[in-house]
Amino acid sequence: MNGAQSLLRALTEAGLDTCFTNPGTSEMHLVYELGRTADVRVVLCLQEATATGAADGYWRMAGKPAFTLLHVGSGCANGIGNLHNAGRAGSGIVNIVGANATYHQRNFPEHELINGKVADLARVVSHWAQEARSASDLAVLGATAARDAKSGSICTVVAPTDCHWEPAAAPPAPLAPLSLPRASNDAVAEVAALLKNGERSALLLGKEALHGEGLELAGRIAAATGSMLLGEMWPRRVARGEDRVPVTLVPYLAEMAVPMLQQYAQLVLVGTLPPVSTFAYQGAPVSKVPPGCHVTTFVTAGQDIVAALRALAAALDAPAQPSGRLARTAVTAPTGTLTSDAIGRSLCGLLPQNAILVNDGTTMGLTIVQRTQGARSHDLLEAGCGGSLGAGLPVALGAAVACPDRKTVLLQADGAGMYAIQGLWSLARETADVVVLVLRNDKYAVLEMELARVREGDANEKMLSTVRLDAPALDWVKLAEGHGVPASRATTAEEFHVQLEAALGRRGPYLIEAVCADDIGAFIDVVRKPR
Amino acid sequence: MNGAQSLLRALTEAGLDTCFTNPGTSEMHLVYELGRTADVRVVLCLQEATATGAADGYWRMAGKPAFTLLHVGSGCANGIGNLHNAGRAGSGIVNIVGANATYHQRNFPEHELINGKVADLARVVSHWAQEARSASDLAVLGATAARDAKSGSICTVVAPTDCHWEPAAAPPAPLAPLSLPRASNDAVAEVAALLKNGERSALLLGKEALHGEGLELAGRIAAATGSMLLGEMWPRRVARGEDRVPVTLVPYLAEMAVPMLQQYAQLVLVGTLPPVSTFAYQGAPVSKVPPGCHVTTFVTAGQDIVAALRALAAALDAPAQPSGRLARTAVTAPTGTLTSDAIGRSLCGLLPQNAILVNDGTTMGLTIVQRTQGARSHDLLEAGCGGSLGAGLPVALGAAVACPDRKTVLLQADGAGMYAIQGLWSLARETADVVVLVLRNDKYAVLEMELARVREGDANEKMLSTVRLDAPALDWVKLAEGHGVPASRATTAEEFHVQLEAALGRRGPYLIEAVCADDIGAFIDVVRKPR
Repeated sequence: MNGAQSLLRALTEAGLDTCFTNPGTSEMHLVYELGRTADVRVVLCLQEATATGAADGYWRMAGKPAFTLLHVGSGCANGIGNLHNAGRAGSGIVNIVGANATYHQRNFPEHELINGKVADLARVVSHWAQEARSASDLAVLGATAARDAKSGSICTVVAPTDCHWEPAAAPPAPLAPLSLPRASNDAVAEVAALLKNGERSALLLGKEALHGEGLELAGRIAAATGSMLLGEMWPRRVARGEDRVPVTLVPYLAEMAVPMLQQYAQLVLVGTLPPVSTFAYQGAPVSKVPPGCHVTTFVTAGQDIVAALRALAAALDAPAQPSGRLARTAVTAPTGTLTSDAIGRSLCGLLPQNAILVNDGTTMGLTIVQRTQGARSHDLLEAGCGGSLGAGLPVALGAAVACPDRKTVLLQADGAGMYAIQGLWSLARETADVVVLVLRNDKYAVLEMELARVREGDANEKMLSTVRLDAPALDWVKLAEGHGVPASRATTAEEFHVQLEAALGRRGPYLIEAVCADDIGAFIDVVRKPR
Repeated sequence: MNGAQSLLRALTEAGLDTCFTNPGTSEMHLVYELGRTADVRVVLCLQEATATGAADGYWRMAGKPAFTLLHVGSGCANGIGNLHNAGRAGSGIVNIVGANATYHQRNFPEHELINGKVADLARVVSHWAQEARSASDLAVLGATAARDAKSGSICTVVAPTDCHWEPAAAPPAPLAPLSLPRASNDAVAEVAALLKNGERSALLLGKEALHGEGLELAGRIAAATGSMLLGEMWPRRVARGEDRVPVTLVPYLAEMAVPMLQQYAQLVLVGTLPPVSTFAYQGAPVSKVPPGCHVTTFVTAGQDIVAALRALAAALDAPAQPSGRLARTAVTAPTGTLTSDAIGRSLCGLLPQNAILVNDGTTMGLTIVQRTQGARSHDLLEAGCGGSLGAGLPVALGAAVACPDRKTVLLQADGAGMYAIQGLWSLARETADVVVLVLRNDKYAVLEMELARVREGDANEKMLSTVRLDAPALDWVKLAEGHGVPASRATTAEEFHVQLEAALGRRGPYLIEAVCADDIGAFIDVVRKPR
């Protein structure tokens, strides 16, 4: 047995069966072994951002880690933006990154980094990153990585080529999973008392509290205490739509979040951090929590959130049913100008039961997400939980690979969609059942808004040209077809509705370029800072 | 004056006038200031790999640094692969990377990395990376970065948002450039004696020794000593074609390089490292230098290479003319099947005087580069000097921005071209005078070759599907048009020749998808390892 064989056995024995990869020369032994087994599905990606983002999407829907196979420092670097997103989502991933042979690194061949090692690069977005020192070490690291990734860690194993081909011992037996720390009985009793003290309260939910048993428990706790349920701004996965427990997500801008949270005297955090502004602005507070609101952390993201909610529901003797369930919103097919509002209404009516809705829609996505709250029941995944744009196509790919029997719909802002556009090809390669809705406005609308918030003065043409994609305009139908994905363009609400209905009725990837007429001017006037 | 204004003044007073950027919220103050000045050309890129690769190409042709403006950790990460290439090329670049406000980072908003800081990420591909601590500090770091980048360093300044908007002192006066260390008189005398000792000698040239005065001096030294002139495998810039001093590049595979170098008893390194294999292979040596060949380092890449060659030519009393100059190769327009050989012959005949030929052509590029040795005089840039694929479009963009009056031709392998395909849009935005020749074979041919070198057995279909891009095939005409670049497809040598002639006769970007019929099977048989 060589190192590549031993490593692969460690990963498959731990239950990992999906590999997202863009391999290179130093990974050929592993490509060879992956080709000899039917136990692992190998998804080729044409750029590493697709591979790591897909592993994030896969984890969120499969509930178990995939592994990536990346090529040396530059391949690892290309995947870092989406590993960052995955890290902030709490998605577990095993990365295998090739490297020069242990004895060759000192000769400084071309792929060696000028001021560090591959593990230094990977470490900033990994819970741990280690380079194997021998062929047998490789499988030990792989087994450890698989165990840790199962509890939501990102683990990077740097694999020098000679560790692949040298003789290796059999891998260690699969390691027992790590148990997550539980909330103490004191914490449960304290929060139970808090929620019964008569103050206006909200639970701010994150991670496992936003879907499945976690969300149901939160709904029952709300029923027992009269608390409101809020969700973290960019949820990795939230169950919503008809019959699901309603949750209101915290708004992006602090000046919108603060008035919302001002309704509550106390805020209990369940698997999330105190809400703060994504960016600081000159002369503005960064906290989204108003001064009078008391914040208590019940469980952190690293604890067993569902167990804590179970204990809290029991302590409160919570009723069997949640405080409320969402009703289906009745919508008629929109007509006329195509806007995010029209898209939201079409989607609210047409989104199939049990769909996966991935949002990388930035400004226009906000409206569409709001309008689909009362669609058939579905899961909503915010693509880039760490704020790195362009995770939409990769996350949708990973979700579709994890759940081949569910329809995935991706809200894809045009500017954001360009960062990892290569993901389209992998959708086609995998016949992934994904409908991509490109929300085209030919600009980074969020940056046009942010330019208006710079206090120095109004934006001129040169500034605006730095945040606009209109010279030339991108042709998303050609971009899609060039990658092997069929596509069409919609310029009215009627065209969009018909195309969406047709796309949802077929299987496999399809892209609709929605040429949107949204006017962000009014929004900019609202958020503009006084000078 | 605020920090952004002070930083920008530091950069422009140091002579930097070109910015390749993909900005985000935290960089809006700098976008604002860039919009207020006509002193800086702002090139918007839709993914950061384009920005950093363009800065590399710009440096090679302009001989001075550009600066990049990137958005936080994820934007920096996307640019790392091409910063690595730039670092191995020795191209000087100033990176300005936005970050959260100093006082907000501790709140761990979404963009904060889970296990490090932006500077930790940038450092591995930078000579130095530092985060500004105040608005005034920002300009000091900018001035220092500009100075160091002029001598070939990559310097990364992490710029927290509050350092942009807070009041700042005026920037320091532009710093005096750093002088490069010179070769000692002893080293010159020693190498002069060595080259006169009657042994068969070769100079292995890198960096500034491969073009301009450096290459002329090397040619004169060759005339004085009878030495051969070799060039490093992946030159950042080599002058070639009619009337240029002939240089033979070291082959990629050690088994081809060793027999070539076996002709020489001694090898003198001029601005390059001892040649080694890019990757190690099981049971094979990694050095390209045969056991009997004596290696002497005359000057390193960090020294003043041209001054050293000047001193050596003087010590040798070298003649005024080099040992030889390349003659124009007479070619007739190829006919029939379209292969890299046919493309090379077309290009040899048609490449305009003073063109810039960028090579990201991997396997097929090898043949085309060989065939164009006797074209009209031109500069050849190997796109990815650090081996990170996909630098072609970015480097071509940067070269074209640096030299608007020269035609740039890019040899772009199809697999490699997908890593940073977004560069096409920036070519269109800038009306860059670049002809992109996509060498389409629907596979990572180099990996198909490398799979054959794995000693375990022959590749099966699953293995091959991991290195092939044929399911579905990419349509490069649509990909180009989708990004705003006009394009056409050639499937015969005649079609290609006519399209190339037309493309070279117009201005602005144009892409030709060359559907190549090269058979790599014969090559694979040559390099396959015995089992």
